[in-house]
Amino acid sequence: MNAQKLLAEGLGTAFLLISVIGSGIMAETLAQGNVALALLANAIATGCMLFAIITTLGPISGAHFNPAVSLAFALRGDLPWKDFGPYVLIQIIGGILGVWACHWMFDQSILQTSATMHRTGVSQWFSEIVATFGLLFVIFGGLRSKPEAIPTLVALYITGAYWYTSSTSFANPAVTIARGFSDTFAGIYPGHIVMFIVMQLIAVGIGHVVLRILFAEE
Amino acid sequence: MNAQKLLAEGLGTAFLLISVIGSGIMAETLAQGNVALALLANAIATGCMLFAIITTLGPISGAHFNPAVSLAFALRGDLPWKDFGPYVLIQIIGGILGVWACHWMFDQSILQTSATMHRTGVSQWFSEIVATFGLLFVIFGGLRSKPEAIPTLVALYITGAYWYTSSTSFANPAVTIARGFSDTFAGIYPGHIVMFIVMQLIAVGIGHVVLRILFAEE
Amino acid sequence: MNAQKLLAEGLGTAFLLISVIGSGIMAETLAQGNVALALLANAIATGCMLFAIITTLGPISGAHFNPAVSLAFALRGDLPWKDFGPYVLIQIIGGILGVWACHWMFDQSILQTSATMHRTGVSQWFSEIVATFGLLFVIFGGLRSKPEAIPTLVALYITGAYWYTSSTSFANPAVTIARGFSDTFAGIYPGHIVMFIVMQLIAVGIGHVVLRILFAEE
Amino acid sequence: MNAQKLLAEGLGTAFLLISVIGSGIMAETLAQGNVALALLANAIATGCMLFAIITTLGPISGAHFNPAVSLAFALRGDLPWKDFGPYVLIQIIGGILGVWACHWMFDQSILQTSATMHRTGVSQWFSEIVATFGLLFVIFGGLRSKPEAIPTLVALYITGAYWYTSSTSFANPAVTIARGFSDTFAGIYPGHIVMFIVMQLIAVGIGHVVLRILFAEE
Repeated sequence: MNAQKLLAEGLGTAFLLISVIGSGIMAETLAQGNVALALLANAIATGCMLFAIITTLGPISGAHFNPAVSLAFALRGDLPWKDFGPYVLIQIIGGILGVWACHWMFDQSILQTSATMHRTGVSQWFSEIVATFGLLFVIFGGLRSKPEAIPTLVALYITGAYWYTSSTSFANPAVTIARGFSDTFAGIYPGHIVMFIVMQLIAVGIGHVVLRILFAEE
Repeated sequence: MNAQKLLAEGLGTAFLLISVIGSGIMAETLAQGNVALALLANAIATGCMLFAIITTLGPISGAHFNPAVSLAFALRGDLPWKDFGPYVLIQIIGGILGVWACHWMFDQSILQTSATMHRTGVSQWFSEIVATFGLLFVIFGGLRSKPEAIPTLVALYITGAYWYTSSTSFANPAVTIARGFSDTFAGIYPGHIVMFIVMQLIAVGIGHVVLRILFAEE
Repeated sequence: MNAQKLLAEGLGTAFLLISVIGSGIMAETLAQGNVALALLANAIATGCMLFAIITTLGPISGAHFNPAVSLAFALRGDLPWKDFGPYVLIQIIGGILGVWACHWMFDQSILQTSATMHRTGVSQWFSEIVATFGLLFVIFGGLRSKPEAIPTLVALYITGAYWYTSSTSFANPAVTIARGFSDTFAGIYPGHIVMFIVMQLIAVGIGHVVLRILFAEE
Repeated sequence: MNAQKLLAEGLGTAFLLISVIGSGIMAETLAQGNVALALLANAIATGCMLFAIITTLGPISGAHFNPAVSLAFALRGDLPWKDFGPYVLIQIIGGILGVWACHWMFDQSILQTSATMHRTGVSQWFSEIVATFGLLFVIFGGLRSKPEAIPTLVALYITGAYWYTSSTSFANPAVTIARGFSDTFAGIYPGHIVMFIVMQLIAVGIGHVVLRILFAEE
């Protein structure tokens, strides 16, 4: 585990949260109550950032920025287990620092706790399974078919997934935790975080089995 | 015909319907009655998913997800006729399962029948001919000029075609059937499905003749 | 001059007009009077189609779909002058047929004449010079720096140019003429067509001089 | 220092300002007061133009169009210091000429001074540091990981950064100065320009240190 990889995972996750939280604040502020318009800007801005950080940091750390992705790679033997803990820790720290930087950029209190209460329930939990499974699907499918397309695959998949899952696709435990620290458009009530993460981890398990079959090389 | 190909066609078509139906539900819910805004989100989300599933599954099954496309390939001799039936069957099954998964994600009744009555009439039928011909045009034109661009070609073509055909471009019998099972933004009244499919098949016939001339290699 | 090239130029220009006129009709119908939203859909749909037709038809005919572009190539000696006339003729015919196909798709009178009166005046004329010069700039700059990026360059340039010129960037005599045949969102009053085309041709002249210097190879 | 490079930097920066100012005017005029919609069009149009000018002019001048970027390259020894002054000068001149061309296209007074007063304060200054640091991050990260992706990286980064910084990401001293000359959507009160530029230069300093570590080759 070298420092460069940890810096990449931390900075990349911070940038990811800046894009999610920042564009959410900007869009909600300007959209005159039209949530579809706000979500469109939120989704496009997040996709733009994902392309940027995966392209630039992929060759350094693998550009996970996501404990679920790191877990999936570790289960396949593509990330040493000794690196798994540090990766997850720096992703969570980076994510939270990104949220705080964002609050400062938008002239808000740095320390917040989300009061967004609608991110719970069976439908949203199932959404998080689908969302996370789909994310692993594009990553491992892309690795098999066209590795250089992975930044585009993840960016477009997530831009779309804001729309085709009822949870707007968190699909990332570090992002989920960090979004608990922001009482803005993209926030999630801290008490609802655990179930989202449980669902994301279930998806890692399902993906580990199904994608191995689907993407098996002959 | 191996199981991996069928799994790819089924899962891909399911994902495609999740993107069409899910983003339609989300967009209509949030757009405050502005259908242009809802359609924009619907079109972008569908395009994002198409890029993802064609890139990842193309090398496995050819990434048809569409009986009209499978038929066109079979007519050219690029899909064995013995595989045609299983492909179509799994595409339809995958599509319907995608719709049902989507309903669960959005906390709706799983079983629905569309009551959307405006998807009929000569103009829309002609639109489906143009839409399906155009889809075959980008696929077979892309195969000739730049095969690695096909995921982008199909994704962008369909994103645009939501707008430049009055039917919003179903262009796919499996998608058309599956959308009959959803009484949401992207639904189609079951009684109107047959004519849409007839038009899509006519386009396959026209495309088989015209595109052979247009894209003939010297 | 072979028939395949003419078919490509005609069909491509027809598709281009379908995207411009069709998405304009759809967007205006659904946008509840918000012209910015309609123009956004119009611009995105046009860009999507441009990418599709330039990628697929480029290797066949060069994918001009535009008399100004054909003229610029002819001036450089890259299109034989004997082909110039047929190219322009088929582009204009294809464009008008595309408009008529579009009217049929949207259940409108096939034959129309635009009554859109606001596309005139010095500012818009100057806009057409800038728009057309910019189009030639990306084409000839792309040919020098990265020919395989030309479909993306033209698609994105025009998507943006809907916004940064007051004329929304016709930049194409065949498109300008064809849009005179549609009394819809993208129409132009026939009496205003000539000056738009004059400006587009002036831009070809300016581009011929300036771009030769700018993109000179050492 | 040859004339071709200066022409490229000047024309490119002029085109960049045309996209920023022009799409801002068009979008604000049409958006019926919905600033989110105007900003979405503004961001997309700017991204489209950035892709076009960086792809076409990159091989000629490096496609900086930005004194902060030229400074960062000079600090790394990748731009001769003797070229730095002329680059900055022509970028500023090109930017202002682009603004004036834009005013003419939109039938406005050529000479204007912005009265937009809200682009100031600690939050926006911090935003400009983040925005500029992020821009250098994608440029130097892209140079390390995938140089041919730099036009896409910069275009998408900036499209997103309109949303995830409270300043909408000027991130460019020449653009900042030129936007002082336009009393339109994208303008900035001249008295607020200096602090924006100071922040952009601070970001160059931070980037010079941090990115050297992050993107060090082993």
